[in-house]
Amino acid sequence: MSAEPSLDRAAVEASYRRIQEEFSAGIEDLDGTTSFVSDTWQRPGGGGGVTRILTGGSHVEKAAVNFSAVSGETPPGLSDRLAIESQEFYATGVSIIVHPLNPHAPTFHANLRYFETDAGVAWFGGGADLTPYYLYESDAAHFHRVLKTICDAHNVTDHEAWKRACDEYFYLPHRGEARGVGGLFFDHLTERLAEVWEFQVALGEALTESYIPILELRVDTPYGEAEREWHEIRRGRYAEFNLIWDRGTRFGLETSGRVESILASLPPRVRWSYGHEPVPGSAEAVLLDMVRSEPRDWV
Amino acid sequence: MSAEPSLDRAAVEASYRRIQEEFSAGIEDLDGTTSFVSDTWQRPGGGGGVTRILTGGSHVEKAAVNFSAVSGETPPGLSDRLAIESQEFYATGVSIIVHPLNPHAPTFHANLRYFETDAGVAWFGGGADLTPYYLYESDAAHFHRVLKTICDAHNVTDHEAWKRACDEYFYLPHRGEARGVGGLFFDHLTERLAEVWEFQVALGEALTESYIPILELRVDTPYGEAEREWHEIRRGRYAEFNLIWDRGTRFGLETSGRVESILASLPPRVRWSYGHEPVPGSAEAVLLDMVRSEPRDWV
Repeated sequence: MSAEPSLDRAAVEASYRRIQEEFSAGIEDLDGTTSFVSDTWQRPGGGGGVTRILTGGSHVEKAAVNFSAVSGETPPGLSDRLAIESQEFYATGVSIIVHPLNPHAPTFHANLRYFETDAGVAWFGGGADLTPYYLYESDAAHFHRVLKTICDAHNVTDHEAWKRACDEYFYLPHRGEARGVGGLFFDHLTERLAEVWEFQVALGEALTESYIPILELRVDTPYGEAEREWHEIRRGRYAEFNLIWDRGTRFGLETSGRVESILASLPPRVRWSYGHEPVPGSAEAVLLDMVRSEPRDWV
Repeated sequence: MSAEPSLDRAAVEASYRRIQEEFSAGIEDLDGTTSFVSDTWQRPGGGGGVTRILTGGSHVEKAAVNFSAVSGETPPGLSDRLAIESQEFYATGVSIIVHPLNPHAPTFHANLRYFETDAGVAWFGGGADLTPYYLYESDAAHFHRVLKTICDAHNVTDHEAWKRACDEYFYLPHRGEARGVGGLFFDHLTERLAEVWEFQVALGEALTESYIPILELRVDTPYGEAEREWHEIRRGRYAEFNLIWDRGTRFGLETSGRVESILASLPPRVRWSYGHEPVPGSAEAVLLDMVRSEPRDWV
């Protein structure tokens, strides 16, 4: 572990708040009819956050853009998980989820976080990933291209390893399915913190560009009840991943995090249909084949 | 652990198959329009089962009545979980879930199971519980009364402890909410196996009586979009419990059980609405107060 001096917490928080503002504004512009509502909350153990939720938009069925900065006594689960002895911790981050209404528009997720313990350890983690319900290869390529461009412009990154880590993390072992087309995933970046932060800020600023053009392209695609059913069935997989496998969700729930903020990532409407399999050769089957196959190099 | 001779597997299986048949028939009679479809499956490691699913009924939106009898090499997760050294295991059981269409009709769940290891250990486990979306105290009382009557008629039971175990098990710590009004929960009954089996058969035969009269009473209650929304939001809690906390579900998924059978318990349609709270004094608020309060003695 690095003994590098930790960063200025207020400055890191301010950068995350700015990313929260910018991304929210991008979603509001795209949607055109609905605005985010903010919930400011305090954590009993120390710190708090601002949960921003948009629901029932003309294009966005549910979006959550959440900022938090919490600190205090290290929860028992956390010290075990990190295999550290630490009495005090500090964590700040911004997390984003967008569930569009149109089944042709993919779900977007991103997270940027910074962590410190009184054991003198500090690190960054985060990433972004895309979950389509119908596969548009050009959307996946655009998304990955934006992320790769940001990585390539910063020396502290490892695009290949982080793309692979994303494919490995957002995977449902019980289904043998990827969650979507992946993206970036990195964690425990303890070295050259100032440069990693710079990279994170650039990534945060590029999130709008990585996703909003895809949304713009897809939100007016015609669809009917059959596409909506498929959409909600696949969203069931999203809920399964978040509730069964996502470490952040489980950690939050096990350490008495703010439940409504943690579970704001869950899709607004979901179906579970026993043994549902798409018609061979259909667009739904193409999506399913993709998530059941080896990860692709989309760029 | 008891060194008691284990039971005749074929006879235990036959009793579970009979319970599966009887309960399915009761649901079909009540629904009146739709029948169960059977899926017979083999487990690659040994054994198999029959998953019976009814969907889209006039009163029952989704029901699953599943039988399985599996054996073979003990999965790694299982020996850890049971803290036993066992090369071979055998497990048979019947599990039931009913998700009615009408929000005034409660969800029903029951499970009966028998387990053996080659370490000479055998036991029964199981239970039944009820999850209303609107509280009818008389329904809860009827349900618990039937279960208590069966317990009282068998010397090997402990109704008080098993009622409490059910309240403790079907609890969502992250919400501070009970799943519903409870019922019975028992596990690791290793003593007097023949008598426990007799009790289980009586319980299995009484499941129809414990639930179908409640369904009959509620399936024609008028409701609108607001009740349906509440129904699906509360079903979100059901999905949260099953995916985050239910030991059987997690164990099944972690040991490569048959996913569609394990997740057949999930509600057919679910909503997650950020920060939803019912209007104070409403019927929805009464339900929420109940699940957030200490368990009651319904009988």
